[in-house]
Amino acid sequence: MKIVIIGSGNVATILAEKLFANNIFIAQIIARNLDTGKALSQKTHAQYTDNYEDIEKDADVYLICVQDDFLPEVAGKLEKVLPKKSLVVHTTGSASIKVLEYISSQYGVLYPLQSLRKENESVQEIPFFLDASTPEALEKLQLLAKNISSNIAFANDEQRIRLHIAAVFVSNFPNYLYSIADSFCEQHGIDFKFLLPLMEETVNRLHHFSPKEIQTGPAARGDISTIKKHETILQKENPEILDIYSFLTEKILNSRTD
Amino acid sequence: MKIVIIGSGNVATILAEKLFANNIFIAQIIARNLDTGKALSQKTHAQYTDNYEDIEKDADVYLICVQDDFLPEVAGKLEKVLPKKSLVVHTTGSASIKVLEYISSQYGVLYPLQSLRKENESVQEIPFFLDASTPEALEKLQLLAKNISSNIAFANDEQRIRLHIAAVFVSNFPNYLYSIADSFCEQHGIDFKFLLPLMEETVNRLHHFSPKEIQTGPAARGDISTIKKHETILQKENPEILDIYSFLTEKILNSRTD
Repeated sequence: MKIVIIGSGNVATILAEKLFANNIFIAQIIARNLDTGKALSQKTHAQYTDNYEDIEKDADVYLICVQDDFLPEVAGKLEKVLPKKSLVVHTTGSASIKVLEYISSQYGVLYPLQSLRKENESVQEIPFFLDASTPEALEKLQLLAKNISSNIAFANDEQRIRLHIAAVFVSNFPNYLYSIADSFCEQHGIDFKFLLPLMEETVNRLHHFSPKEIQTGPAARGDISTIKKHETILQKENPEILDIYSFLTEKILNSRTD
Repeated sequence: MKIVIIGSGNVATILAEKLFANNIFIAQIIARNLDTGKALSQKTHAQYTDNYEDIEKDADVYLICVQDDFLPEVAGKLEKVLPKKSLVVHTTGSASIKVLEYISSQYGVLYPLQSLRKENESVQEIPFFLDASTPEALEKLQLLAKNISSNIAFANDEQRIRLHIAAVFVSNFPNYLYSIADSFCEQHGIDFKFLLPLMEETVNRLHHFSPKEIQTGPAARGDISTIKKHETILQKENPEILDIYSFLTEKILNSRTD
C-alpha cells in the first residue's frame, strides 16, 4: 500500500508513525507547516511538499489529518489535482463523510477514538471507527486499519459525532480536571504523582462496574459537612476553581435523587 | 497485632479485607448496621457487636472507618469505654486528627488516597497518608500500613484535606463525567467499552506528561465549529447535559489564554 498524508499535526504524526512502524509505505507528506511537515517526512522516509500540484497521483489512500475547519479548503485543493477514483479519507469525529464526496467516488473516514499528541508516541491501543462510500473503499480502509489496530468498528456520521461527544466527556474534560488538580497540588506542595493510583483505579474498575454504581466521594454520599469544608478552603485559597467544584458537586448531589 | 474496626461501609470493608488477607488479626467489628457488620465480621473471622460496652479493651489499634459526620458521635462512645492509652485512628481525608484527642493520648490518621467501594475488592495500590499524636503512635501506624501498602507518606491536617480536594477533582468528578458518557452512549446505542482505551491513555500518559501540556479536544484547539456542532446535538437530544458540556468547554477555552 502507498499512502499520502495531508497534515503534520498530532493525528497526522501519530498515524504516520504507526503506519511507518508497520512497514506501510508513506510516499508523501503534504503540509502547510514547513517545520512539522519536514520533520514528519524525515521520520517516515516520505517526500515533503506544501504544493498540491506536486501530489503523488497513484497512492492507494489519501489520508487527510487536518482540523474540521480546514477540511473544506483541503478538499477543494484535492478535488483539483486528484484522479476521480482516488480513495480519499478524513480522520475527524465531527465532520461528515460527505465533505469528501465531490473529490472522488471513493471516500471514507478513519476515526481514531483516542487522544493523540505527537509528544506521546507510546499510545498503545487506538480503536478506529470506519465509514466509506463503497464496499471497495471500506475493504481497503479495513486493510489499512488492521495494520495499526486490532480494535476496529464501523460508525456512520451520526454515530461518529456522538462518539466524539462521549470522548470529550471521558477524556478532554477529565484531563482538564487533572490539570486543575495538578496546579492545586503544586501550589500546596503536594506531589501530584501520589494521585496516579487513584486516577488509574477510577478508570480500571470500569472494566467491571458501571461508573454510576461505583461513584464515591463527599457529594455521592451527601456528606455536606465535608463539602462545606472544601468550599471554605477553596474560597480562601483558590477562588478561581471554586465554581467548578461547586458546579460538579451540585450535579452529583442532584443525580443521587434521579 | 490485634485490630478493632469501627464501621462496616466501603472503607471498613476494603481495609479489613486487606488486613485479613495479610494475616493481621481483626478481633472485632463494631457497626450499627447488623447486616453489613455481620457480613464483614464473617469474612474476616472477627467478632461482631453493635454495643460499644462489649469492645475489646486490649487491641493495638482501633480503626474508625465512618463518615466525617459520625466521627464526633463515635469518638464520644469510644471515650467512655476505651483505656486512655489506646491507639485510636480515623481514616477520613477531611476531618482533623484532633477529633480523637480527648479519647486517648495516642491517636492518629490512616488516610487511604483511593476510591474504595466494597464491591471492588481488587483495588491494587492504596497510597496511605499517616499522621499521629506521638512518635510511638506513628511507628505503630506505619507498621500496620506497611502490611497493606508500599506507598506510605506523611500528611498533617492541612495537607490531608487538600489531598482530599485534589482527589475529588481527579476521581469523583471524572467518574461523574464517565457516568454521563455511559448514559449518553447507552441512549445512542454505542458500546461504552469502546471508550476505555481512550480513558486509560488519558491517565497513563500522566506518568510522563503534565495534564496541561497534553490537553486535547475541540476546546483545547479552539475548534469553535466542532463545539457548535456538539452543542446543537446536545441541545436537541440531551439538553440535561448541555450545561456541563458548555461550562467545561468555556473553562478550557479560557484556560488557553492564561
